[in-house]
Amino acid sequence: MRLKLGMVGGGKGAFIGGIHRIAARLDGHWDLVAGAFSSDPERAAQSAAELGIAAQRSYDSFAAMAKAEAARPDGIDAVAIVTPNHLHPPVATAFLRAGIPVICDKPLATTVEDAEALVKLVAETGLPFILTQTYTGYPMVREARALVAAGRIGRVRHVQVEYLQDWLAMPAESSGNKQAAWRTDPAQSGPGGCIADIGTHAFNLATFVTGLVPSAVLADLTAFGPDRALDDNAAILLRFGEGAKGMIWASQVAPGAKNGLRIRVAGEAGGLLWDQERPDDLEFTPVGKPTRTLRRGGDGVLTPARLPAGHPEGYLEAFATLYAEAAGQVREFRNGTKSGRDIVLPTVSDGLAGMRFIVAGVRSNEEGGIWVRL
Amino acid sequence: MRLKLGMVGGGKGAFIGGIHRIAARLDGHWDLVAGAFSSDPERAAQSAAELGIAAQRSYDSFAAMAKAEAARPDGIDAVAIVTPNHLHPPVATAFLRAGIPVICDKPLATTVEDAEALVKLVAETGLPFILTQTYTGYPMVREARALVAAGRIGRVRHVQVEYLQDWLAMPAESSGNKQAAWRTDPAQSGPGGCIADIGTHAFNLATFVTGLVPSAVLADLTAFGPDRALDDNAAILLRFGEGAKGMIWASQVAPGAKNGLRIRVAGEAGGLLWDQERPDDLEFTPVGKPTRTLRRGGDGVLTPARLPAGHPEGYLEAFATLYAEAAGQVREFRNGTKSGRDIVLPTVSDGLAGMRFIVAGVRSNEEGGIWVRL
Amino acid sequence: MRLKLGMVGGGKGAFIGGIHRIAARLDGHWDLVAGAFSSDPERAAQSAAELGIAAQRSYDSFAAMAKAEAARPDGIDAVAIVTPNHLHPPVATAFLRAGIPVICDKPLATTVEDAEALVKLVAETGLPFILTQTYTGYPMVREARALVAAGRIGRVRHVQVEYLQDWLAMPAESSGNKQAAWRTDPAQSGPGGCIADIGTHAFNLATFVTGLVPSAVLADLTAFGPDRALDDNAAILLRFGEGAKGMIWASQVAPGAKNGLRIRVAGEAGGLLWDQERPDDLEFTPVGKPTRTLRRGGDGVLTPARLPAGHPEGYLEAFATLYAEAAGQVREFRNGTKSGRDIVLPTVSDGLAGMRFIVAGVRSNEEGGIWVRL
Amino acid sequence: MRLKLGMVGGGKGAFIGGIHRIAARLDGHWDLVAGAFSSDPERAAQSAAELGIAAQRSYDSFAAMAKAEAARPDGIDAVAIVTPNHLHPPVATAFLRAGIPVICDKPLATTVEDAEALVKLVAETGLPFILTQTYTGYPMVREARALVAAGRIGRVRHVQVEYLQDWLAMPAESSGNKQAAWRTDPAQSGPGGCIADIGTHAFNLATFVTGLVPSAVLADLTAFGPDRALDDNAAILLRFGEGAKGMIWASQVAPGAKNGLRIRVAGEAGGLLWDQERPDDLEFTPVGKPTRTLRRGGDGVLTPARLPAGHPEGYLEAFATLYAEAAGQVREFRNGTKSGRDIVLPTVSDGLAGMRFIVAGVRSNEEGGIWVRL
Repeated sequence: MRLKLGMVGGGKGAFIGGIHRIAARLDGHWDLVAGAFSSDPERAAQSAAELGIAAQRSYDSFAAMAKAEAARPDGIDAVAIVTPNHLHPPVATAFLRAGIPVICDKPLATTVEDAEALVKLVAETGLPFILTQTYTGYPMVREARALVAAGRIGRVRHVQVEYLQDWLAMPAESSGNKQAAWRTDPAQSGPGGCIADIGTHAFNLATFVTGLVPSAVLADLTAFGPDRALDDNAAILLRFGEGAKGMIWASQVAPGAKNGLRIRVAGEAGGLLWDQERPDDLEFTPVGKPTRTLRRGGDGVLTPARLPAGHPEGYLEAFATLYAEAAGQVREFRNGTKSGRDIVLPTVSDGLAGMRFIVAGVRSNEEGGIWVRL
Repeated sequence: MRLKLGMVGGGKGAFIGGIHRIAARLDGHWDLVAGAFSSDPERAAQSAAELGIAAQRSYDSFAAMAKAEAARPDGIDAVAIVTPNHLHPPVATAFLRAGIPVICDKPLATTVEDAEALVKLVAETGLPFILTQTYTGYPMVREARALVAAGRIGRVRHVQVEYLQDWLAMPAESSGNKQAAWRTDPAQSGPGGCIADIGTHAFNLATFVTGLVPSAVLADLTAFGPDRALDDNAAILLRFGEGAKGMIWASQVAPGAKNGLRIRVAGEAGGLLWDQERPDDLEFTPVGKPTRTLRRGGDGVLTPARLPAGHPEGYLEAFATLYAEAAGQVREFRNGTKSGRDIVLPTVSDGLAGMRFIVAGVRSNEEGGIWVRL
Repeated sequence: MRLKLGMVGGGKGAFIGGIHRIAARLDGHWDLVAGAFSSDPERAAQSAAELGIAAQRSYDSFAAMAKAEAARPDGIDAVAIVTPNHLHPPVATAFLRAGIPVICDKPLATTVEDAEALVKLVAETGLPFILTQTYTGYPMVREARALVAAGRIGRVRHVQVEYLQDWLAMPAESSGNKQAAWRTDPAQSGPGGCIADIGTHAFNLATFVTGLVPSAVLADLTAFGPDRALDDNAAILLRFGEGAKGMIWASQVAPGAKNGLRIRVAGEAGGLLWDQERPDDLEFTPVGKPTRTLRRGGDGVLTPARLPAGHPEGYLEAFATLYAEAAGQVREFRNGTKSGRDIVLPTVSDGLAGMRFIVAGVRSNEEGGIWVRL
Repeated sequence: MRLKLGMVGGGKGAFIGGIHRIAARLDGHWDLVAGAFSSDPERAAQSAAELGIAAQRSYDSFAAMAKAEAARPDGIDAVAIVTPNHLHPPVATAFLRAGIPVICDKPLATTVEDAEALVKLVAETGLPFILTQTYTGYPMVREARALVAAGRIGRVRHVQVEYLQDWLAMPAESSGNKQAAWRTDPAQSGPGGCIADIGTHAFNLATFVTGLVPSAVLADLTAFGPDRALDDNAAILLRFGEGAKGMIWASQVAPGAKNGLRIRVAGEAGGLLWDQERPDDLEFTPVGKPTRTLRRGGDGVLTPARLPAGHPEGYLEAFATLYAEAAGQVREFRNGTKSGRDIVLPTVSDGLAGMRFIVAGVRSNEEGGIWVRL
């Protein structure tokens, strides 16, 4: 039984809304059936139409949507909130009060008070609330967490996280980059820049993997970009309740790093290393033994995966690209049009070439290893 | 406008059918609306029900399906064929004759004659025919092809492909592994084992990237598994029309390699290296210059990608895992049940912890870099 | 003209003394001709004999050695000091006062006062004084420094250094490891443990590569080993005069890291990454361009190297191993003995096999690619 | 007791002679005391003088040298032959006949007949004969060999070797590169180009690691360089007596590869992977278990090494560079000259900076983690 999903935010031109929709589709559990995609009614309606949403379930406001969907017998099973950050609390509140589970993009809010109020409301309503801290979905991050929890590296001593990007190395905010503009504006982003945007990911990853409870923080934040009001580089020390230590280097001005999230955990009995740029591998070193590379879906790994080991996570995307382009070809065929662009999709003649290769190869071998024409 | 997809094969317990369905869903171009999921009517019906297919569009045979779907005004726009290999030709033939475009899993057929007949039929019908050679969908494989086509590495001299797996290192076929059983059986797989199963992928990749036309092949095929009738290791030399040379090592008995597809191209003016186990990177070396690592979606790369650079392809899967588990939580909530298993999904309290981290970090910094309690 | 080297410390059983001797021999600039290898006269004499030092130039004390060598017309051109750390200042002082240049292992001293006194004395004497901070000798570290100095990455913003080992993850000091025993003893090592042993390397590397002047430090030091008096893990923040920031994580309890020294520099116009475990590569990313892997001796690299690119630094060691084993064989031949152990050295029959391979390969090719017996 | 080494070839401007001398010096077993460095008497004498060889032991011809050294009571213990390849047999013959052990650069000869004659002569004389196949000296190559010999990967099935360079990608022989000129000239190199120059290394490595006996070869050799008489690219298949298979791709026209020697061995019970560009690591995968990265000198590794794990092989070279530059400084000091060039050698003030860093860091920590000025 598929579930019905609504969405607030994520209209035309948005980035993360599209990611949420792909994620919701991928395993086939959700149908997107309703949305308040924009505060601009025209734009909301247009986005809804493009997404195949029935007109009566495209709403002009999240408040109207929460009310109407709660009232329908076939109302949505959950709402995905993909608005700018400062809207997360009011939208989440509206849907929680309407009895509708929430899937909310991170960060939860822009103030501690708002966040606390949401925690309280979730407790009162008893509703599911999912915060999409993406990396907690990586199989090998979960494997790391499971290894720590199972005591495989002993008591944790130090946890180190790097989260490095380089897209703010240049003053992107003054050259028309909208993402850069709002993320460097305290009015829209709150008091933290880099520490809030990606530092929290690093912080969450540290606690997610180790299970440690943080007790104190010391931060040296810098805005290197000229005339930049918020930090774009964060050097952070952490202390945890159990005596463990931690460090975070989060930076958006680190050339060479596109989205380099990397965690290293040093425990009494072993160590772990995971790097988002090579997400299928987890390096596990028991003290006094060689490093073992645990691979998603591979030997000795407990966390389930969609694909067998060695099919990297991009495999599904590569496959989906073929289907997307097949859709393009079929549409052109239906329309009687031709795009004229270079078609790289493999087709029946490629299949024939493959067959000829196999048969010629088998013959070459049968005759003792001779050259056979193709 | 979404397109309507039918599927032949891929019922309960199948592997590649599920991959096709994920791929078809990912970008939202296709709805699966019909299928002949199994030759066993009961199983076909059950699979259809689980996939949410209307009962009247679940068929007992591909022939009946082709006929009925062609006749419906809302008939399928294309069929995906994910049966065992020897059925690809008859199924494809039936749908092509019914005027329905085909998306067919590789290999196209088990004989050259069948493949030739399909090429002819596709030409006659003028219908789209897509063979799902997966790796041709990787952005950086396409980037490699584009660089070669643009003359960036000059005339190609040598192309080297390795495709290594280790799942047949042990006699898996005699220990109940069904995949291993049929793939090592000439009656079901035809004359080639490893050369047909993965050697063709390597061969296709070599020609896809370089655009070279192969002229001759020499193969040394070996069955290392005890009592194995088909090759599990293929050492292959290639010659191409333009004087270029090539080699393929395909093996299913190479411990340490899970699905190691790797291509290196040596051209007159530069070289390329791509490895499926690190699919986001393409190494490009112009003669006499340092190697440049081109990254999917990154600086200087032309091939489009779903995500910005540094978000590895697994990012979408990680995201989708959160949505899949959110579905589980919402279902339990609807049912009033509790699974009792460890919930690792981030929730509202994680969001609160993140806010506290940001605020404490900003305060630490404002006061000159002091420790602040969390 | 070769120079004459003396050595203080480094007798039988020492570690770093042997490294200094290899380093002094490698390029053929130095002959070791004198030494005070131990404070134990018998042991000193025995070490000298084994090293081929004439008996009259083996000394019982460094004071005697400084005096005698300064007086000889053929006295040493420099002394290498490889004693325990607390002896560095008195030994260096004795030789400087005797007018003899000094090559001193790091760290310079165990107190700031001793270090300051040495700085003063060196200035007064005008003698060469070399501190062997090893990594400053790596070609690609120098290349990094040169790139920064040439402005290729613009103004430096952040410098990150990790120096990770795991040999103190277990309480090695209580299981008979002498290195561990003295390094964890404040009486012998001074107030710093890990921060002094390897943290200073990280600190020196940061300033060597960037040329930045450090202005302030904040350290969180921990002794994780049970009953360990000195820190074995150091989390350190740095500030530099020019507004740049830095972080150091130095640890001797990080399982999986053997000697992982890694530096990343983020500049206004580009970034650099170097890792001692892959010392031949330097990653250089100009802002907005793909990462380039600069290789020791390779295209576009200015720093000279002993070997062409691609011959990793271990090449010389591999070669030297053959020579060392050849010495063993020749000695056995001279003595008429046989060791009976497995000889892996290639010999004349390997050369014959190689010739046969070439000739058979050429014939195979000449006859169009056929199998030829070996 | 050090041994006395003579050398034939390797005068001014030669490449490999210098490598042999470094290798001979590194462990301190050899003193170079005699040589016939060139067939040009003046050049021979000049080279000898520069190398510190006594004039009476600098010879004009290898024949004279063999005779004279055999007659001296303090004659050489072995000769190193580093001439062009075609001279290896006559020189080796002269010294063997004079009763002097031989260390000979590879390849042994340029014809099978010459090689066979040498094998016979070595057997007759009973003298040590070492062929410097460099990579057999790498600790992790030896570890690989030991693992195979100990049955850790079971019966070997397939061995794959790549040896890739790119220095002949352009027509270097026509632009004044002497190395390129003689290596592409059949008159000086014999019938094989790339197959002889580096293909034999790959072949030797395959047999060295696996212990397999080769039985047949099939080669597809190509000269891609314009007007090049000898092959610069070799695609080779191998068969071994025990039913194992092998492939070699050797190329000197592969842009991006500087000296990429890489071997992969697939055995019944496990697999191995070693890459000369990362010589300290050996990947070992037992069937059905995660890959383990064995590191030179590290946990679970039996082959001895000069240095502990994590000190990469370049460590000694970095150290030696400091000593070489120290020699330069001491010479300048002795001469009262100044080079005026940028001195990067660490000195006493660097040591002071390090002490200040330690003391400030310890104080920062003692006061609870505060900023302390440097």
